[in-house]
Amino acid sequence: MVKYRVFVLKGDADSSELAEKLGKGNVSVKKLKLYSRNLLLAWPDSGKPVDHPGIEFQTSIDSEFILSSREWKRDDTIVDVGGVHVGRDVTIAAGPCSIDFTENIEEFASQLKKAGAHIIRGGAYKPRTSPFSFQGKGTEGLDILKKMGEASGLPVVSEILDSDNLKDFNGVDLLQIGSRNAQNFQLLRKVARDGRPILLKRGMGNTYTEWMATADYVMSEGNGSVILCERGIRTFDNATRFTLDIGSIARGKNESHLPICADPSHPAGTRELVIPMTLSSVAAGADMILVEVHPNPDLALSDGKQQITVRDLAKLAESVKSLRQAIRV
Amino acid sequence: MVKYRVFVLKGDADSSELAEKLGKGNVSVKKLKLYSRNLLLAWPDSGKPVDHPGIEFQTSIDSEFILSSREWKRDDTIVDVGGVHVGRDVTIAAGPCSIDFTENIEEFASQLKKAGAHIIRGGAYKPRTSPFSFQGKGTEGLDILKKMGEASGLPVVSEILDSDNLKDFNGVDLLQIGSRNAQNFQLLRKVARDGRPILLKRGMGNTYTEWMATADYVMSEGNGSVILCERGIRTFDNATRFTLDIGSIARGKNESHLPICADPSHPAGTRELVIPMTLSSVAAGADMILVEVHPNPDLALSDGKQQITVRDLAKLAESVKSLRQAIRV
Amino acid sequence: MVKYRVFVLKGDADSSELAEKLGKGNVSVKKLKLYSRNLLLAWPDSGKPVDHPGIEFQTSIDSEFILSSREWKRDDTIVDVGGVHVGRDVTIAAGPCSIDFTENIEEFASQLKKAGAHIIRGGAYKPRTSPFSFQGKGTEGLDILKKMGEASGLPVVSEILDSDNLKDFNGVDLLQIGSRNAQNFQLLRKVARDGRPILLKRGMGNTYTEWMATADYVMSEGNGSVILCERGIRTFDNATRFTLDIGSIARGKNESHLPICADPSHPAGTRELVIPMTLSSVAAGADMILVEVHPNPDLALSDGKQQITVRDLAKLAESVKSLRQAIRV
Amino acid sequence: MVKYRVFVLKGDADSSELAEKLGKGNVSVKKLKLYSRNLLLAWPDSGKPVDHPGIEFQTSIDSEFILSSREWKRDDTIVDVGGVHVGRDVTIAAGPCSIDFTENIEEFASQLKKAGAHIIRGGAYKPRTSPFSFQGKGTEGLDILKKMGEASGLPVVSEILDSDNLKDFNGVDLLQIGSRNAQNFQLLRKVARDGRPILLKRGMGNTYTEWMATADYVMSEGNGSVILCERGIRTFDNATRFTLDIGSIARGKNESHLPICADPSHPAGTRELVIPMTLSSVAAGADMILVEVHPNPDLALSDGKQQITVRDLAKLAESVKSLRQAIRV
Repeated sequence: MVKYRVFVLKGDADSSELAEKLGKGNVSVKKLKLYSRNLLLAWPDSGKPVDHPGIEFQTSIDSEFILSSREWKRDDTIVDVGGVHVGRDVTIAAGPCSIDFTENIEEFASQLKKAGAHIIRGGAYKPRTSPFSFQGKGTEGLDILKKMGEASGLPVVSEILDSDNLKDFNGVDLLQIGSRNAQNFQLLRKVARDGRPILLKRGMGNTYTEWMATADYVMSEGNGSVILCERGIRTFDNATRFTLDIGSIARGKNESHLPICADPSHPAGTRELVIPMTLSSVAAGADMILVEVHPNPDLALSDGKQQITVRDLAKLAESVKSLRQAIRV
Repeated sequence: MVKYRVFVLKGDADSSELAEKLGKGNVSVKKLKLYSRNLLLAWPDSGKPVDHPGIEFQTSIDSEFILSSREWKRDDTIVDVGGVHVGRDVTIAAGPCSIDFTENIEEFASQLKKAGAHIIRGGAYKPRTSPFSFQGKGTEGLDILKKMGEASGLPVVSEILDSDNLKDFNGVDLLQIGSRNAQNFQLLRKVARDGRPILLKRGMGNTYTEWMATADYVMSEGNGSVILCERGIRTFDNATRFTLDIGSIARGKNESHLPICADPSHPAGTRELVIPMTLSSVAAGADMILVEVHPNPDLALSDGKQQITVRDLAKLAESVKSLRQAIRV
Repeated sequence: MVKYRVFVLKGDADSSELAEKLGKGNVSVKKLKLYSRNLLLAWPDSGKPVDHPGIEFQTSIDSEFILSSREWKRDDTIVDVGGVHVGRDVTIAAGPCSIDFTENIEEFASQLKKAGAHIIRGGAYKPRTSPFSFQGKGTEGLDILKKMGEASGLPVVSEILDSDNLKDFNGVDLLQIGSRNAQNFQLLRKVARDGRPILLKRGMGNTYTEWMATADYVMSEGNGSVILCERGIRTFDNATRFTLDIGSIARGKNESHLPICADPSHPAGTRELVIPMTLSSVAAGADMILVEVHPNPDLALSDGKQQITVRDLAKLAESVKSLRQAIRV
Repeated sequence: MVKYRVFVLKGDADSSELAEKLGKGNVSVKKLKLYSRNLLLAWPDSGKPVDHPGIEFQTSIDSEFILSSREWKRDDTIVDVGGVHVGRDVTIAAGPCSIDFTENIEEFASQLKKAGAHIIRGGAYKPRTSPFSFQGKGTEGLDILKKMGEASGLPVVSEILDSDNLKDFNGVDLLQIGSRNAQNFQLLRKVARDGRPILLKRGMGNTYTEWMATADYVMSEGNGSVILCERGIRTFDNATRFTLDIGSIARGKNESHLPICADPSHPAGTRELVIPMTLSSVAAGADMILVEVHPNPDLALSDGKQQITVRDLAKLAESVKSLRQAIRV
């Protein structure tokens, strides 16, 4: 495996000279600006520290994920989602799997806020196994979601499947890349260039390392506002719809500076398991929870069985808060 | 799949008459005494309730686990392990993966107790992938473990591989069936007849249902003192040594009356992950934690990387306590 | 789960009238032309046969894949890839993982043909875990691949990552959708509309059913020239890089009318296993093999360890031929 | 990981002197007789060749399986099962999952032989998920199996769950250790000492390496008559009941001198898939097939759906033979 050397440059230092110096022979070089710092990446790393007056810090990284690694950025990255600071306290994003209703929108949005949601989630474009299943309400769904945001004053998040739709997502504060597109690198790059914060779900068949490395695709476009989201992996186990990989949350908190989100709804598959699996995720270190809440779960057009009510959300938010305080002490 | 009908009989009622009445044609019948109650199992169930004066309660169970199911026993079973009541508060069992030291035994035992352990664990017989790897100290190890128990006044738990060794386990309060023997049904039956409490680890390749059903093997011998232990399953994921199946703990708490234990040490594989994975298990509902603690982890003959120190244990026990209180409220 | 009813219409019958008749209330209807037949899909199916003079054949399908199912089309679909009829005898597509060489192109192409290849494969756009790994030579690679096709007179296949690149793929006879984009439904739809034959690799984390259903995305755009390709799934097993799912090939042959391809190179991971895993795939029923062959495997920029030589290919092609004859008798 | 050094001694050389010379300090030594050769195992290996006149051959093995490895024994081991030489041509063992019938036994046995079976299989002790499911006919079943052997003149194989039953297995030519007991090392050791050939099924949750290493448990007791059997592993895939790990068969043939068997019936789960999965196994290199055949599959008390008829077996045996010849050329 290739080793990489990361250089963080001094405030006013220009990376071009250093890039030119290093980029000889078979050495590749990449200049980047992330978190207001000039960075330089060079690989394969010779293993020897480089002497140059513009360098503030340098390190060698022997991993398949570089930019998302804590090895060059020790402090936690806080991602600003429309004023909500993800990575500080536990952020709760809540709302319907897909927006399949048109009534009492504002009221539902207010209820979510009151119950403890900091961000409203809602699916408008839904990737489904079959082309003949309900695929979401598209732009109509996005319009409803934006109205929910306005009514409540909360930022909103929704999944994007195609960069051609980016303009329709104006007003959406956080762009979600779903599990099925986790390694759709073209989509990652194009959405990254838009500059908005991105929520990267782990592919249900992806390893921990592959998941971490998807963040590098976004960050290599100069966009450091990435939240990584564990949503359960495929295993032989039949206890739950997917197996929530708690260990990858804990390891991700150790090894990456990015905030980690957990989606307990998809692995749970049924309502009763959503609460314990949420608490479990927060205890493992999750900074954010993405939970499916529906005004009337039994009428939902997709994933009804795993959506909870606003009343459940209120209880959950309470428990999350006290749990976080308990393990902080 | 076959359906079963479970009958709980009235205090002084005899099950023989009912057994005779039901056990006709192709119907199988099994008489059992569990938790001081006379039970009767009949299958396949016709679906019709049976009318008989001796019946206090009856129900039809459509599952591959019957006796461990909450469907016939709603209240939580509390297992008495040498005076420690597993299933009430969170019980912590701590000690070395294998007993590979002979010095300062009593002192280490006292340290474990002081740090918050309620039960002392220690391996004497170790199943290893290769016959040439260290297989544990056998009876010598058991003797050391018993001394640790005596010194601290705590009950002890150790893994048993062969029912021929049962006499050597005299003085061991809780008998552990390991992951590799999870479906060694002959061992389960024979150890069950001994009557002592049994800790049943889930096989690393077993489904949730298979795990639950292993308890039925023990209970069908009339031994209801069973603790079910999740210890991580085999998946493609490389974040951790095994994938801790948090969902199966949560579902197990809903569906079984038996206490659920979690072993965070084996799935973690490294020290840093043991604490978050322990907290995660407790948040999911675990009643007991089985954690590897070594006087000197770096010198351990097996699994050194995943064993924590007594000092870590003390911190962990504190966090577990406050977490449990937080989510109880 | 929703049931679907598929109608195959008589030669000159118009489906509009039937569509109008059926598409009432909550019933959805889709008109399609596939394999020169007018089809109509209606769901949810009421379960009752529909009486209409234009219907030649109708059937109810209770599955998540409809169009790729053998339930409405009994005969094997033969896909014409630049004159090669995939689905008749075993088709061998061979060539480098990625085109990373520029010399002796024509000679290598002729060698591949002589060794038994019917189609030449070569990667120009490579999706890699890290954005800093070699991503293929892009259009330059495609140009080389086309030259190889011209020199040998064989059709060529290459992976497409982005529909924006479709024009660069002019001259490429078979468009491959890779494992990471297996559920990138936008890409599937857009490439399908191009009309060329498509090779659909199974996602490494996708179930059999999900894989089969990806073909429905292509076919619902009116493109029936689909080859399904099994390339190994993610499992806990460490014997090979991926676990080749032989059972899904066998089941796919039973349940789908589409040709099934196997990629033995990715699951094998090492050269020595490519030959037995190829033979194994053909014995399970595979119609096509996609095998990585490099002029100099040890110098390859990606997946060198699993690429075989032209000499190996010649032997392999011989064995494949005799094996197919043996099991045909 | 520990390295091992294996010494094969000259015909009349005594290993005691060498053992004494090597077994100093922390070096462990094991004397063994396998395949009529005196062996010595010493670990950890210093890496330096040992000079001693009694040594015919020595090698260092850096793996978790030693005795089953081809690194010290290049030639294929042929296991004699009651006169059938497993490891030469493809051996077919066929018969019912469990012996659940008592009529026309001799006739059925003759039919199996005529259809191409070389060994008759039949389960008498069945490990089942639930203690209340049919557990086999025990000694009665073994008696019927032996009668089938006598009637046909073929050797017989059956699964043993408990070494206490060894005497009941007198007359059984090949002792099978099932998937659930694959790492029941006490059973492996005790049955190994009996001296008869042993068929070792891979645990459904065991890695390739763990499977290979189970053979070392048998061989370390001086019993070299081991056949390794792949029977499908647990994965997320739902195409088949288990995922037949073709790659582990191919890799096992490269790395181990022991014969490899495949059980296509359990992974297939349904009749239609048994034939292609058998052929697939043979193409991957399997030396033996263990296939479930029932006089009346639809009446079978266990696994009826995956059992084939004698007529199917005859066709299968023909195909296996021609396939083997085809790939041999």
